[in-house]
Amino acid sequence: MGTLKFTKMHGCGNDYVYFDCFSQNIEDPETLSIRLSDRHKGVGGDGIIMVCPSDIADGRMRIFNADGSEAMMCGNGIRCVAKFLYDTGLAHKKHLEIDTLSGVKYCDIIEKNGEAVAVTVDMGRAELVPGRIPVSLPGERIVGETVSVAGGEYEVTCVSMGNPHCVLFGGDPMELDLETVGPRFEKDPIFPQGVNTEFIEVIDSHTLKMRVWERGSGETMACGTGACAAAVAACLNGYCKMGEDITVHLRGGDLVINYTDERVRMTGEAVKVFDGEIEV
Amino acid sequence: MGTLKFTKMHGCGNDYVYFDCFSQNIEDPETLSIRLSDRHKGVGGDGIIMVCPSDIADGRMRIFNADGSEAMMCGNGIRCVAKFLYDTGLAHKKHLEIDTLSGVKYCDIIEKNGEAVAVTVDMGRAELVPGRIPVSLPGERIVGETVSVAGGEYEVTCVSMGNPHCVLFGGDPMELDLETVGPRFEKDPIFPQGVNTEFIEVIDSHTLKMRVWERGSGETMACGTGACAAAVAACLNGYCKMGEDITVHLRGGDLVINYTDERVRMTGEAVKVFDGEIEV
Repeated sequence: MGTLKFTKMHGCGNDYVYFDCFSQNIEDPETLSIRLSDRHKGVGGDGIIMVCPSDIADGRMRIFNADGSEAMMCGNGIRCVAKFLYDTGLAHKKHLEIDTLSGVKYCDIIEKNGEAVAVTVDMGRAELVPGRIPVSLPGERIVGETVSVAGGEYEVTCVSMGNPHCVLFGGDPMELDLETVGPRFEKDPIFPQGVNTEFIEVIDSHTLKMRVWERGSGETMACGTGACAAAVAACLNGYCKMGEDITVHLRGGDLVINYTDERVRMTGEAVKVFDGEIEV
Repeated sequence: MGTLKFTKMHGCGNDYVYFDCFSQNIEDPETLSIRLSDRHKGVGGDGIIMVCPSDIADGRMRIFNADGSEAMMCGNGIRCVAKFLYDTGLAHKKHLEIDTLSGVKYCDIIEKNGEAVAVTVDMGRAELVPGRIPVSLPGERIVGETVSVAGGEYEVTCVSMGNPHCVLFGGDPMELDLETVGPRFEKDPIFPQGVNTEFIEVIDSHTLKMRVWERGSGETMACGTGACAAAVAACLNGYCKMGEDITVHLRGGDLVINYTDERVRMTGEAVKVFDGEIEV
């Protein structure tokens, strides 16, 4: 029995319970995440994130999902980790290096009145080679190709941002029966590791509207890698231009994506909701 | 701009954000409740509860729903208010009188190691006269009567616990398509003010299993007045006995109901989850 201090934060509605593990010790994060993530009897959240010291970076992020499993990386979560490091003074630097299970990520703080309000994250390179996404289709890349998938014929673009994405362009995604269509893509055998599927409406050459079906999670309010994949696909299909900022409207908020051959950079809000203290 | 301290508590999964309003002032609780109840971008909860001083009782409870509307009374909420008054020392008494928009309610604390763990609430008398429930059916009371309602023929028992209830006995309520059946009862014209509908399986003469469809809210994890109405109906239909404790299994936890001609007493848990502090 003891007391743990925490901070509740969210990025585009993707919310976690954050712990300063520079000064606190969590022995069993799997069990704690299951207990605290309960939205009625716990703190409520998509999981917990431990902000830990690192020998090779300014901090290390460990994410545990609501089911207790450890995740590799989360684009919305890492922005809040950067804000946490910056605002608390654990690492009060505008450019932060944060270690994750997907390697060290680079974050730039956008501040207002001394506090981080938004963060730009270097999300790495977009991978287009089908075998590395993975998607079981021939060719060097799948861009705007009509394929038999999910029980129909769809024009798809496939991208990996460290996880597999299938991007489709069409009308207003809010009118889509995502609960029916999403699982059909997720479980289609052309995606041997499953897939995250993004349904995109092109508003103009700098603006996309998106809904996402995440493998294993269903519809989510925001998917950082999905917004990146959508912007990459929009450039490859000629709807948007590489090197220019593309705003993606997600259900939980907006993300701004900038895609070049070298990297995909994502900028979005990082919001502290409250500080708490709980007996464990 | 200022800071508010709060405590997150729940009774059978019915969770609110509680404020000590003996020492704090909340100017616009409607707006605050809408903001804080958001489960992704706020604290998360079914609403907020202000624990205020009272001239006529040990404290006064004001409840605001997640949509900002003020509620009259909540059986799960008032147990947590009693625990809050007791544990914080605002009113460290085993028998507490708490003022609500439905009048003064009487609570008895069940404590362990100096803290309240459960609370018994006097929920008042059960009203059976159809016109006072209200239900538009003839007769002195509606107990196990087969009536045309909700697009079919159902055997129903009607009870008011300050709000209207329609109780049905049958098989395992977990196998019921509540999303379809619930609204049909709620909107049936024989209930001029709508109705809360309870679907009950009698496990034995001291145990009921229940799911509830609440008017305006849909399915909820626990409904205190619904559990009371279910126990009253079980006694009137001969499944249970007046004056004996009846345990009602709800999705969010258990409530123990004791029904006599004079009153309905409800006992259940009151759980503190964490303390928090938020800028408003």
